[in-house]
Amino acid sequence: MELGINLGFASKRWPEPERWASLVREELGLGLVQFTFDLLDPWWPERERRVLAERVRRAADDFDLTIHSAQLGLAWYTFNGLLHPDAAAREIAREWWRRAAATAAELGVPAMGGPLGALSATDAADAALSAESYDGLLKDTVAASEAAASAGLEALLVEPTPLPREIPHTVAQAQRLVADLEGRLAVPIRWVLDVGHALYHPLYGADVTLEDWLVPLRNEIGLLHLQNHDFRSDAHWGWPHDGGRYDVAEFAETVRRAGLAHIPVVIELFYPFEMPDEDVLADVRRSVLHCREALAQSATMHMG
Amino acid sequence: MELGINLGFASKRWPEPERWASLVREELGLGLVQFTFDLLDPWWPERERRVLAERVRRAADDFDLTIHSAQLGLAWYTFNGLLHPDAAAREIAREWWRRAAATAAELGVPAMGGPLGALSATDAADAALSAESYDGLLKDTVAASEAAASAGLEALLVEPTPLPREIPHTVAQAQRLVADLEGRLAVPIRWVLDVGHALYHPLYGADVTLEDWLVPLRNEIGLLHLQNHDFRSDAHWGWPHDGGRYDVAEFAETVRRAGLAHIPVVIELFYPFEMPDEDVLADVRRSVLHCREALAQSATMHMG
Repeated sequence: MELGINLGFASKRWPEPERWASLVREELGLGLVQFTFDLLDPWWPERERRVLAERVRRAADDFDLTIHSAQLGLAWYTFNGLLHPDAAAREIAREWWRRAAATAAELGVPAMGGPLGALSATDAADAALSAESYDGLLKDTVAASEAAASAGLEALLVEPTPLPREIPHTVAQAQRLVADLEGRLAVPIRWVLDVGHALYHPLYGADVTLEDWLVPLRNEIGLLHLQNHDFRSDAHWGWPHDGGRYDVAEFAETVRRAGLAHIPVVIELFYPFEMPDEDVLADVRRSVLHCREALAQSATMHMG
Repeated sequence: MELGINLGFASKRWPEPERWASLVREELGLGLVQFTFDLLDPWWPERERRVLAERVRRAADDFDLTIHSAQLGLAWYTFNGLLHPDAAAREIAREWWRRAAATAAELGVPAMGGPLGALSATDAADAALSAESYDGLLKDTVAASEAAASAGLEALLVEPTPLPREIPHTVAQAQRLVADLEGRLAVPIRWVLDVGHALYHPLYGADVTLEDWLVPLRNEIGLLHLQNHDFRSDAHWGWPHDGGRYDVAEFAETVRRAGLAHIPVVIELFYPFEMPDEDVLADVRRSVLHCREALAQSATMHMG
């Protein structure tokens, strides 16, 4: 199983591409990263954005890192995106996805995406408005896939989230989205499945398992996001963590059993802005070591 | 003492201006808000941005709300801003401040701003690079004040944060910033003082008091941000909260004693995205009630 890390941990602390590339390769011993738009925002003016993107490509080359894809981060997740209740704001969101596709091409990565959007509480409480928003979302996802194809990308990443106002937030909704978009997409959808989202008990109940997601969505899974959590918050903690209960060895077993050991696994960690940089780096180091050992242990068992 | 609320609590849940305006006026019983750019981003294309800003102005009028100012939120705080180590990214940040000034004018508010930026860990560890970044920050703050003046604004808000990589993060640094900018600004700087930032023990020690900030900076304080916290995290909890220890009655006493009872007080609360909307609203209601009662109690004592 291939292990990498989402660059969210580097935001604001190690924004220089040579710095995060050196940390990932030399201190964490990894060769795979997922880029985050929290390091380079698609909204930024093209000229400067291209300068920054070129520096990212060069650093990845210099440190022999593969960038799996570019994923939206905290900045764009702050907004309602393609499910904003205002038509002008939805036009803005469509523009964001066009710019995100262009930025991904500038970065030289083959895929980009993330969560699609969130209904307002008012729209979510109204069945007719929700249905209308969903129809708009289908059209906008098609448009995003066309922007991705025009930019030369191979896939559009979509990440389910454990929020009832967001689409998709269940396996059934994810399956329906793919079915409703059948034959309409310019590049395929690839799911980003996050273990903290998929196993969120307040929404899915205490009996939910990772298989519940892996098995029905198996043909379209593009990436697995690994985080430590307590099944009751989207915590994105590392290992070990006082409140964290997520077992990486069990995760690896489950993924293997589902026949998905070829899907890349990317650790995604977030820390409070005020946490000291050296504490963050120590936690990232420990977490990568923990995950690598747990995945290797599982591999050994299967070879034995 | 005038009490209001920062609209951060409404992000993604109640993004419709009529909805948050109605919540603030009718459910919270407040007449003052601080707008957050997390509801309307300065990066968004001008045409649609203006449509959205006009809707904000109309809703504020319809519900008789005063918008104190517009402050940057989670989205722009994700980035290094004016202290980014890359020159291209600093040019981008200057453009953000120009666009923020224009957006504030579209919203019809008299001031805008927030934290200025964060050094990278690498720059922060190098005295020469830090000094160079600080000189650039002075120039860029002058430019931001000029953009604010051109847009017809009256002040530039600057919020100290409890992070050693950010400027300013101490009283001395804030005083030095004002001294170094003396006679150079097109509109004055007004501090946004947040009680969770100002009293953060890991950086300032357990003996820090609110007076330590209020007294030396008194002439330039524009707004007080009120949040519940534990003196060890920038928590932005409401009241009551299991871990929260911040005493609003004591806050009111301190502000009065410093002769600053005329400065508006704005509650700023943030919640996990996955927290149910009704729980968020209940917590906001309880918190506003708590703060209103504590401020009123203090007022009564002083009239008696």
